[in-house]
Amino acid sequence: MIEDGVLRFGMVGGAAGSLIGDVHRKGALFDGQAQLVAGSFSRDFERTLLAGEQRGLDSERLYRDFYEMAQSEAAREDGIDFVVIVTPNYAHYDAAKAFLLQGIHVVCDKPLTFSVEEGEELAKLAQDKGLLFCVTYAYSQCATLKQAQMMIKHGEIGDIQVVMAEYSQGWLATAVEKQGNKQASWRTDPAQAGISNCVGDIGSHIEHTVAYVTGLEIDELCARLDHFGGEDRPLDTNAVIMVKYKNGAVGNYWCSQVAVGYDNGFRVRIFGTKGTLEWCQEEPNYLNVIKLGQPRQRFSRGNAYFYPEAAAMSRLSAGHPEGYYESFASIYWKFTTALLKLKQGMELDEEDLDFPQAFEGVRGVKFIHRCVESSKRGSTWVRF
Amino acid sequence: MIEDGVLRFGMVGGAAGSLIGDVHRKGALFDGQAQLVAGSFSRDFERTLLAGEQRGLDSERLYRDFYEMAQSEAAREDGIDFVVIVTPNYAHYDAAKAFLLQGIHVVCDKPLTFSVEEGEELAKLAQDKGLLFCVTYAYSQCATLKQAQMMIKHGEIGDIQVVMAEYSQGWLATAVEKQGNKQASWRTDPAQAGISNCVGDIGSHIEHTVAYVTGLEIDELCARLDHFGGEDRPLDTNAVIMVKYKNGAVGNYWCSQVAVGYDNGFRVRIFGTKGTLEWCQEEPNYLNVIKLGQPRQRFSRGNAYFYPEAAAMSRLSAGHPEGYYESFASIYWKFTTALLKLKQGMELDEEDLDFPQAFEGVRGVKFIHRCVESSKRGSTWVRF
Amino acid sequence: MIEDGVLRFGMVGGAAGSLIGDVHRKGALFDGQAQLVAGSFSRDFERTLLAGEQRGLDSERLYRDFYEMAQSEAAREDGIDFVVIVTPNYAHYDAAKAFLLQGIHVVCDKPLTFSVEEGEELAKLAQDKGLLFCVTYAYSQCATLKQAQMMIKHGEIGDIQVVMAEYSQGWLATAVEKQGNKQASWRTDPAQAGISNCVGDIGSHIEHTVAYVTGLEIDELCARLDHFGGEDRPLDTNAVIMVKYKNGAVGNYWCSQVAVGYDNGFRVRIFGTKGTLEWCQEEPNYLNVIKLGQPRQRFSRGNAYFYPEAAAMSRLSAGHPEGYYESFASIYWKFTTALLKLKQGMELDEEDLDFPQAFEGVRGVKFIHRCVESSKRGSTWVRF
Amino acid sequence: MIEDGVLRFGMVGGAAGSLIGDVHRKGALFDGQAQLVAGSFSRDFERTLLAGEQRGLDSERLYRDFYEMAQSEAAREDGIDFVVIVTPNYAHYDAAKAFLLQGIHVVCDKPLTFSVEEGEELAKLAQDKGLLFCVTYAYSQCATLKQAQMMIKHGEIGDIQVVMAEYSQGWLATAVEKQGNKQASWRTDPAQAGISNCVGDIGSHIEHTVAYVTGLEIDELCARLDHFGGEDRPLDTNAVIMVKYKNGAVGNYWCSQVAVGYDNGFRVRIFGTKGTLEWCQEEPNYLNVIKLGQPRQRFSRGNAYFYPEAAAMSRLSAGHPEGYYESFASIYWKFTTALLKLKQGMELDEEDLDFPQAFEGVRGVKFIHRCVESSKRGSTWVRF
Repeated sequence: MIEDGVLRFGMVGGAAGSLIGDVHRKGALFDGQAQLVAGSFSRDFERTLLAGEQRGLDSERLYRDFYEMAQSEAAREDGIDFVVIVTPNYAHYDAAKAFLLQGIHVVCDKPLTFSVEEGEELAKLAQDKGLLFCVTYAYSQCATLKQAQMMIKHGEIGDIQVVMAEYSQGWLATAVEKQGNKQASWRTDPAQAGISNCVGDIGSHIEHTVAYVTGLEIDELCARLDHFGGEDRPLDTNAVIMVKYKNGAVGNYWCSQVAVGYDNGFRVRIFGTKGTLEWCQEEPNYLNVIKLGQPRQRFSRGNAYFYPEAAAMSRLSAGHPEGYYESFASIYWKFTTALLKLKQGMELDEEDLDFPQAFEGVRGVKFIHRCVESSKRGSTWVRF
Repeated sequence: MIEDGVLRFGMVGGAAGSLIGDVHRKGALFDGQAQLVAGSFSRDFERTLLAGEQRGLDSERLYRDFYEMAQSEAAREDGIDFVVIVTPNYAHYDAAKAFLLQGIHVVCDKPLTFSVEEGEELAKLAQDKGLLFCVTYAYSQCATLKQAQMMIKHGEIGDIQVVMAEYSQGWLATAVEKQGNKQASWRTDPAQAGISNCVGDIGSHIEHTVAYVTGLEIDELCARLDHFGGEDRPLDTNAVIMVKYKNGAVGNYWCSQVAVGYDNGFRVRIFGTKGTLEWCQEEPNYLNVIKLGQPRQRFSRGNAYFYPEAAAMSRLSAGHPEGYYESFASIYWKFTTALLKLKQGMELDEEDLDFPQAFEGVRGVKFIHRCVESSKRGSTWVRF
Repeated sequence: MIEDGVLRFGMVGGAAGSLIGDVHRKGALFDGQAQLVAGSFSRDFERTLLAGEQRGLDSERLYRDFYEMAQSEAAREDGIDFVVIVTPNYAHYDAAKAFLLQGIHVVCDKPLTFSVEEGEELAKLAQDKGLLFCVTYAYSQCATLKQAQMMIKHGEIGDIQVVMAEYSQGWLATAVEKQGNKQASWRTDPAQAGISNCVGDIGSHIEHTVAYVTGLEIDELCARLDHFGGEDRPLDTNAVIMVKYKNGAVGNYWCSQVAVGYDNGFRVRIFGTKGTLEWCQEEPNYLNVIKLGQPRQRFSRGNAYFYPEAAAMSRLSAGHPEGYYESFASIYWKFTTALLKLKQGMELDEEDLDFPQAFEGVRGVKFIHRCVESSKRGSTWVRF
Repeated sequence: MIEDGVLRFGMVGGAAGSLIGDVHRKGALFDGQAQLVAGSFSRDFERTLLAGEQRGLDSERLYRDFYEMAQSEAAREDGIDFVVIVTPNYAHYDAAKAFLLQGIHVVCDKPLTFSVEEGEELAKLAQDKGLLFCVTYAYSQCATLKQAQMMIKHGEIGDIQVVMAEYSQGWLATAVEKQGNKQASWRTDPAQAGISNCVGDIGSHIEHTVAYVTGLEIDELCARLDHFGGEDRPLDTNAVIMVKYKNGAVGNYWCSQVAVGYDNGFRVRIFGTKGTLEWCQEEPNYLNVIKLGQPRQRFSRGNAYFYPEAAAMSRLSAGHPEGYYESFASIYWKFTTALLKLKQGMELDEEDLDFPQAFEGVRGVKFIHRCVESSKRGSTWVRF
């Protein structure tokens, strides 16, 4: 029996061997606000059954596909409160739609959908039905980026003029998709990943995090996508994107999967008229802050000089590193807290919804499409 | 109902507001091998009841004290498999003894006990009764230190000659124990913390980690303990310890709680005839390795060049930071895996017991006593 | 009397208060292969006289302008062997031409000239007259970049695919040119600096260093120049430049003078199919090297694992930092060594001319023009 | 002819192949306040002649030994103003005495002498004769350490409680003195180096720099010297020294020449009641500053937030690295500036003598002796 104050959820995708599925599951469970009770973990039902057994689930709540799962769970009195979708990209749209139609709240991995229209349809559906929809841009959910966001809101770095952001990895430097790397196989396959691999997978994190932290809106962009790292790769593995924001600021985004020696080098630098902020995903407990004419400062998560809103996102005392799992725990913490409030009939305000919404997922898909479009037109400027 | 393959545990200490209690609980739950079912979370029974309710525990398994808890749980058919003790130091001995006497396996925070004799008694009791006993020196349980240990075992840095280790914090730079900081209150109080604060709390981590990674045994030491940071502090807040190992190598340990600007700067450097290893707790995903005549290398957790034993302790792919919670998750993973084996009647080998044992806890208490003794004798050399 | 083996030189520009003039002078004197004997240090003859006196020069070799200086020195038996031109950009062409016409070898600061045609004229003049011409792109002259160049030549990082380079400063974040900053005054004034400030001053260093180290040739570029940091600044203070190289590789250059908190952040990263190299001007004694599948390495200048060609450019033993002065000393060392050989009637080979030549200066001017052109055309691609 | 305002100097030691001799010479020449005119560069007169010729010296001012040099130069009207002594340690005393007796000012490398008595004799001689005496502890002469000194003087970090300093190198990790390494040969030979190698060579830099920056005076120390890195090495290659200062603060110094992977890792950390300062010789352009309760700051040399006294020691604008040569240039700048004032009959005040004096050299020798004494007595405490 699940006690009060704990939500029930199911998962689509995330069988044994899925790294990100495991991260989602641990993130959702981390703070004790949700319990896994159902799943369709794989297109291969045997794998679903195995995963379900390992996770202690009731076998009758293990499903052959997400349609069956959505219908059956919706019909149960103790049905799931929300679903977590962690399949390869191609299944996001159908899966999310199936659960929304059954009135079930959704957490879905990014990029949200293949097409902008699909994303918009999901966003509208959620809104029409009053359902919560979270797109798991997890990197943005950390105390140091919240601090950055607050500092910008309070004018501490003045007007933003330049944004330099990069997300560089080296894991596709060679054609590992031909050597049995499953992750590489689907990510480099247009049928499963969509029109972009690199921009879709990691470039989209840049887009989201910059928007989340700075509030800047892209006006135009000019992108060049490259297919390095293996002959005849159908999708991009490297991209540079020049960006103009509506406020007159400029940005430069680089994402790469062929940067030998880089593990997961997601780095954002924001330059304002009065100061600079620097953040790096591999050192998420720190934020570099430089004010005009002052020495470079290193903010360390957990110290008293953080804004209360940022301090609230810190779990451990200073110097005790938080990492990747905790960023997922935080996104689920916010989502389940909002959902618990909703179930209790409370009104949700903006602060309650401080996790990535469906419209942000749609904007992310649009970003991918605009980048591909620009690149195909010879890397010319396209309006966003 | 708890499914097969999942252990039941209870906690002593760790009511709301206890940072380390929460870390232990999340660590124990992280991999789904244990479930919290009982507790005596505070000397204040109201707080125990509150914490129990929040954690969804059956109220009949919330206890006024650990004696009652040990007896009652031992008497239940579905009683706890192990207990986790996270009280201030003074209660470790009595609590651990109570559970051991009832045949319940124990996980206990460090330093193990006030006196060496108490520690030895616990170790003997556990051994005599065939019970597992884990002392949570959690820092040692990370992939990068396992890699360091394996490299040393395989002779990659030759014979160790010098060890330089430090653990520096700044949180006691001012007398916060007089300003309502609870953590500071008990740590600076001999009645609750024992004969040492700084060496006991953090110096002991140095001792354990160096021993775990290098295998070196201390022969003699010379220590100087200082009581900086507030008038009339009865216990040490800073210490330097010179060490001679049995193999002829020398070490130098520094621990401090008055190092302004340091959050949790636990850093170990090991110098051998053929190479050097460097590790820092605040960057636990990395290990610096330098071979004689070669450039400095930075090993990044999750990459293929780690020893299999170290790779096995890595949860996430490279560049996705693991942190403090995960080190506790790992210690509990090892402990619960061993306990599950034991319950299935399997023989445990050395590898199964690769978590800090009772005798390591005893050695840690001895280290604290030797340091205090040396310091009191005018910082002269004492045999270990 | 000047002994054998020591060259005589004069300077145009570099009166008291000129930072770069002082650096050139110290660089030229550093290794004892040249002696300063003449100068026209300022348009203000009083300042020339003062500087000459301070530097112990014969007053008859202090000149009102460089025309007079070129003629008079050429007429003397003990006339200067070479001239060093360190004026603001606008005077480079006339000054260099005056000395070349008199048969005097030239060292000239970058950017070489305002127009490409002027640069080409100088290059041709030097060639026709058999005179040495050095353009002081000093950053490229350090042991670590020579090491990078050698590693690339030897195929250690495979085929280059991506180059990411940036040169960021913050000194023009506010309109200091209106507050009496002389350096800022001329650099932001088109009449003195030419068609570009930021790309001309620091973007051109990126262009040169990347070309020097990688050997890559730019095929096309797309640039956006911004005039941040003060109202109505006539010249650029920030630029992003997308680059396509002839071999199919791509590059991204960012230069900025409004990056608050950056002192002189010139950083180059080169990504090949088999490895990555990273260099940063503010840490010139180190080179990061990562080979495919291997840990990140930090090469430290002065160690035995450098190529002989790179080791030859190292003056001090490892760990004893070399800096900015030493890079100028190195460029002058190469130039004067070549000139001494030439004066002894020896043939110069490619290795002797491993300092920035006139044609590199011309290419640099062309780069500036192409960037401005692209930006003016709406940041569209232009052929190089 | 040497112009006014330029001093004449000679050198003892520093023939071709002497790294440190070359550094001294370049440092003395750097700012144009001194000119080399005489020398006894080697015990081997042929090598002296060769070096003299290469440096353009008059052959009559090249001497067989320093006695002859001192006498001859003192007898000349255009004799040297000061001598620079850069021999192995054993010759410092005799050479310095010879020149002092002839009324010639002295710059001498450290450690000053073999015995404390010899050092005291030199100091007294210099004082009695009114001669300047500089001991070249060059590391202390940089803008960032002057900034540290000023911050401490102004109380910015409160009362100092703890000093942690280390100087670690790896060049003697193997017995290179048996493989033809000349530097290693004399440094590991008691006849040439004195009673200590490691403490004498690099430990003494720690002693001086800490004293210079903090003003703390050592009261007692306890040292352990080790002879690692080669069989039967007669002198130490590693040492740890516990220090008590007269103000009640404590220090810990580590010096090593067997720390594989360390080039020249001289690092000083100073912990006060209100703040912390950190400095590292390999990054001499930066100073870490942390104030109680504030984020970590990185001061970058050349920026406006330095004290005027520190800014005055900065030659280049921020981000243009200064290094090892410049620290020697600075010590010679101060020495020659003071000497020029003295020659003009001006009174010298404390600020003029802000370079390491003879008494500091004596204190350094005493430090070496006390460390050796403590170590020999079983690493017990000895009064300083």
